[in-house]
Amino acid sequence: MTHPRLSLNQATIKYADLDEALAVPVAAGYESIGLWREPVQAVGVPDAVRRVADSGLRVSSLCRGGFFTIEEGPTRRAAIDDNRRALDEAAALGAPALVLVAGGLPEGSRDLIGARSRVRDALGELADHARDTGVTLAIEPLHPMYAADRAVVSTLAQALDLAADFAPEQVGVVVDTFHVWWDPALEASVRRAGAEGRIASYQVCDWVTPLPADVLLARGYPGDGHIDFAPITALVEEVGYTGDIEVEIFNQYVWDAPFADVARITAERFDALVAPHLRPIPAPVA
Amino acid sequence: MTHPRLSLNQATIKYADLDEALAVPVAAGYESIGLWREPVQAVGVPDAVRRVADSGLRVSSLCRGGFFTIEEGPTRRAAIDDNRRALDEAAALGAPALVLVAGGLPEGSRDLIGARSRVRDALGELADHARDTGVTLAIEPLHPMYAADRAVVSTLAQALDLAADFAPEQVGVVVDTFHVWWDPALEASVRRAGAEGRIASYQVCDWVTPLPADVLLARGYPGDGHIDFAPITALVEEVGYTGDIEVEIFNQYVWDAPFADVARITAERFDALVAPHLRPIPAPVA
Repeated sequence: MTHPRLSLNQATIKYADLDEALAVPVAAGYESIGLWREPVQAVGVPDAVRRVADSGLRVSSLCRGGFFTIEEGPTRRAAIDDNRRALDEAAALGAPALVLVAGGLPEGSRDLIGARSRVRDALGELADHARDTGVTLAIEPLHPMYAADRAVVSTLAQALDLAADFAPEQVGVVVDTFHVWWDPALEASVRRAGAEGRIASYQVCDWVTPLPADVLLARGYPGDGHIDFAPITALVEEVGYTGDIEVEIFNQYVWDAPFADVARITAERFDALVAPHLRPIPAPVA
Repeated sequence: MTHPRLSLNQATIKYADLDEALAVPVAAGYESIGLWREPVQAVGVPDAVRRVADSGLRVSSLCRGGFFTIEEGPTRRAAIDDNRRALDEAAALGAPALVLVAGGLPEGSRDLIGARSRVRDALGELADHARDTGVTLAIEPLHPMYAADRAVVSTLAQALDLAADFAPEQVGVVVDTFHVWWDPALEASVRRAGAEGRIASYQVCDWVTPLPADVLLARGYPGDGHIDFAPITALVEEVGYTGDIEVEIFNQYVWDAPFADVARITAERFDALVAPHLRPIPAPVA
């Protein structure tokens, strides 16, 4: 039995198909999973919805939408339309949030400010559909080392500024320890996010050095790196986050391990390093 | 003839000894150089002072001091003493600033806030000696991807907060495009740095993707990467910086090239991408 708020993000067992990705956390005592669109689409959304319901798992989030930085034209239109479909899929799956990766600088462009303004524009186009579907657009600030080629949203403060034009139910933020642990303004930004009701997802994984050759794969199990999960977790709790907590690890070593081992180690680390800093679980009524 | 404010940081021609490091920029028309302590110490400081004087070059900065995050004990005492010597060396060489790399988390520690507070403590111990020597302690915020293992000072705002207890002549900041270009708060922080008189050094090099296996070597010539030097340079100028502008490139490809080629390409890129955004050079009096 793992902590009831622990959710296994499907990317942590990247090579599992949807049935495996649902069976593994169930067998390991999880109650929640973070899904990705590709394995869902591989079986079709209606069928995925049935399989998720059969598993008994909650869906903590759907990954991912975004890629909003390209200039106006057919490719941008297709991206906006695809994000609308992603909201529909999240709603069908019962996911409260669609995780958004902003996108990097368009090919050949050095206009960082322009790229960031187009992220805001895209949120404006999608916010009504977010309200209609009941799914929150969850902006994930990515570590600044990805600013050029993956996400021009680099800090929690910036994500909150982008969200500020919209209701918290429409646009929120993801707090992922890997991406934000270094931020000198982290405490202030998490407090602001809590006060504004914008924390749509809290995710934990560790920052491991030396960084691997592919820095996209630099994440590790909690405890394998340099992040102190105690103060960040306690703060996210203190400011009012009550949702599931995902572990999402991109790491070739983790991906190559048996799925059941990954789920077990993830739960052990979570229970040792994260769970002690959460509010006590109310005792069941006798 | 290169731009009179261009300075070649010695690390850009890492394998040059001091004599070569002085001869190369002179031959390429530079008027300024950024020195490193190791090649200076290889010939001894008094001899280095003579050679620099003979070269006719200004010294824009000395690299580097810092490594302030270790807990109290003999190693920390040795680091503080070494920084005092570094200030003496900078003064002897005529360098206006000693560049500081804060240091990463101590081995096995996850206490980021504690490490950051020890940086502030070290500045407090060194500030009087900075005033006595006339050399500014120049805190260089490093890119957040180095927060664990190299520098717990990750943003310009944080560096300015650390400097705030001291006079600008004692403690300033380095604005290095590679480290700060991604920062959503960059404009606000540069304006604050200018208003407080704290910009001790402006350095330019580019952010090139994909990152190399060793992310310490990710820097490139201006123009080879994703940074738009125009707005950052214009802003640094606008807020009052009038000093030399260093190009400091850690990159194996650059290091393996002939020194003269590196100096020439650096000047070409600077003249094309940075110099147009500087104030005009006053015409000589006829």
